[in-house]
Amino acid sequence: MEPSLGTYFDDFTRRDWQTRDPDSVSEPVRLALVGLGWFTREWALPGIQRSEFTEATVVTDVDTDAVDAFTSEHDLTGVSPEEFKAGTVADEYDAVYVATPNATHLEYVEAAADQGKAVLCEKPMAASLDRAERLVAVCAEHDVPLMVGYRMQTDPAVRRVKDLLEEGFVGDVVHVHAAMSQVMLGELSESTDQWRLDSELSGGCALMDLGVYPLNTTRFVLGADPERVSGHTRSVHEAFSEVDEHASFDLGFPDGVQAHCTVSQNAQHASRLELTGTDGQLILDPAFYEREAREVTVVRGEMEADIEFDPVHQLEEEFAYFGHHLLTGTPFSPDGEHALVDMRVLDAVYESADTGMPVTLSE
Amino acid sequence: MEPSLGTYFDDFTRRDWQTRDPDSVSEPVRLALVGLGWFTREWALPGIQRSEFTEATVVTDVDTDAVDAFTSEHDLTGVSPEEFKAGTVADEYDAVYVATPNATHLEYVEAAADQGKAVLCEKPMAASLDRAERLVAVCAEHDVPLMVGYRMQTDPAVRRVKDLLEEGFVGDVVHVHAAMSQVMLGELSESTDQWRLDSELSGGCALMDLGVYPLNTTRFVLGADPERVSGHTRSVHEAFSEVDEHASFDLGFPDGVQAHCTVSQNAQHASRLELTGTDGQLILDPAFYEREAREVTVVRGEMEADIEFDPVHQLEEEFAYFGHHLLTGTPFSPDGEHALVDMRVLDAVYESADTGMPVTLSE
Repeated sequence: MEPSLGTYFDDFTRRDWQTRDPDSVSEPVRLALVGLGWFTREWALPGIQRSEFTEATVVTDVDTDAVDAFTSEHDLTGVSPEEFKAGTVADEYDAVYVATPNATHLEYVEAAADQGKAVLCEKPMAASLDRAERLVAVCAEHDVPLMVGYRMQTDPAVRRVKDLLEEGFVGDVVHVHAAMSQVMLGELSESTDQWRLDSELSGGCALMDLGVYPLNTTRFVLGADPERVSGHTRSVHEAFSEVDEHASFDLGFPDGVQAHCTVSQNAQHASRLELTGTDGQLILDPAFYEREAREVTVVRGEMEADIEFDPVHQLEEEFAYFGHHLLTGTPFSPDGEHALVDMRVLDAVYESADTGMPVTLSE
Repeated sequence: MEPSLGTYFDDFTRRDWQTRDPDSVSEPVRLALVGLGWFTREWALPGIQRSEFTEATVVTDVDTDAVDAFTSEHDLTGVSPEEFKAGTVADEYDAVYVATPNATHLEYVEAAADQGKAVLCEKPMAASLDRAERLVAVCAEHDVPLMVGYRMQTDPAVRRVKDLLEEGFVGDVVHVHAAMSQVMLGELSESTDQWRLDSELSGGCALMDLGVYPLNTTRFVLGADPERVSGHTRSVHEAFSEVDEHASFDLGFPDGVQAHCTVSQNAQHASRLELTGTDGQLILDPAFYEREAREVTVVRGEMEADIEFDPVHQLEEEFAYFGHHLLTGTPFSPDGEHALVDMRVLDAVYESADTGMPVTLSE
């Protein structure tokens, strides 16, 4: 049965996962921030501060000057990576947010797990599949909860698209198109001395950094994992000589749905997710950037509705979910096993791009 | 050098291919219409009548009752297919428009070529590659001009998108997404007794009937032909048991551009062509249906412009081009050789869908 129109109008941005009243939280989850890049400074910390379920208490980064400057402005304890790993101030945090270059997530997650701290690790989990598997294993061995930072999964616009799909509002999904592109060297930093261009640190660029959005969001809204993938990568600009500047990949889902995804670190800024079903279409455009409000279009037959709503702060929602689930002892939906599927797909896309052949994913 | 803004504002729908003044035409090209389906009745005949370069004089169809009814309403000579092939009224037409089921184009084109008449053949040219090759060969043998009915190529919106691409307005194209879908059994006719569902007559359904739009339009605006294709087809509804209900395919172009195309005969009506370049985006949405006005969006950096213009009658433009080029002795751009590339690609997509492997196209 379809929910009433009022459900969508009055409560579009509802937290359907929230069982505990935020006002009842007297002791929020205390977080150590690992990695002080622009995303941590401009998005993660404000998100943690806005969320009633979390607070930031500790920060570390290999750039100790940056840590000093940051702690002089914010009420946080700054430590060196060595001190963090040694657990010097472990009594000051309950959980750890890891937002370093992909290749160095593991060493901090190992330290956090050893300290018995819950982990929120940025995506992709690692620069390679085998290290991602070790990361999941080490959290399991120490029995610490692991969430991976898929901010689209806690965005209400994405959750409402998933709701509409699940209630059959557009019939059976037939095709998916997803695209995400930006001018990385213009929009973020013009410096070519950044870890995303270093294959050792990143494991890849367009696909690892952006590809995970079309991939994971499509998996999330469809509630299914791809069985077969094919991919292409390409680099033209010299800054991308070590890594993929452009990538495209197709995902074959169990019921035959094909998702066509393209990503680029050097093309017009854009992001779009378009799901075409037997009875309608659901479109998110813009879809994927934290710095833009999502817009949702619902099409069915001759009718088309553009849904406008108060945008949320995506990182507030993500950290609220993390803190809430820790405080209530609820398992995370985007956990390590869930994130490993993405790592296997990304690995297979690079393999397919190398061989020119599609890759079947085994269970 | 970029043309002035005024060129786009004042003359968006210009016929850049037109060298002869339409008002100077006293003897337009006389056309025999072969095949009296809904498209001929509702779109081709009005297009021929509106165009100053053409007029319709003769009509034939296997349904002779339909021909009788039609000629009682329109000033046309009706003949049986046998009479047409025998050239009974060949002195009443200069050229032949063939719009029968795909598998029967060839027999009428053979007759027209034998009569020395120019041909405008609907796309796809035939239900199979080998018959398409024979169709092109027979026109060459009889030295009759052959055009294939790619109505997007004479649509000014598509031509302006091509102009913008060629002048580098959006930089180098990186990725293309193209989609076309409809509820065939609802929008056109609810009867399942139609030739598009008969694999012998059609050669396929979603891919043959719709796939040719994303494919040919992408080729046209990029000015390039794909080197490598992969594809998937799928049928769920029992009406499509003989043919592909849904299809998707990727085209790999020489410079590495990947075009991701999806088509469906049983999904929400939609059509879109999205070209993402290093410096901007060009979007046609709606893109491909004759019964909808095209809308063009131009994006570059932070700027976005929705271009509104007086829609043309697509078939008037196509037939005007055909008649104009015959009267002026100008070769057609969408000729038989051009159309054979599509036939090879469609054939390769079906092969790829069968084998699960990509197909490299040889020259």
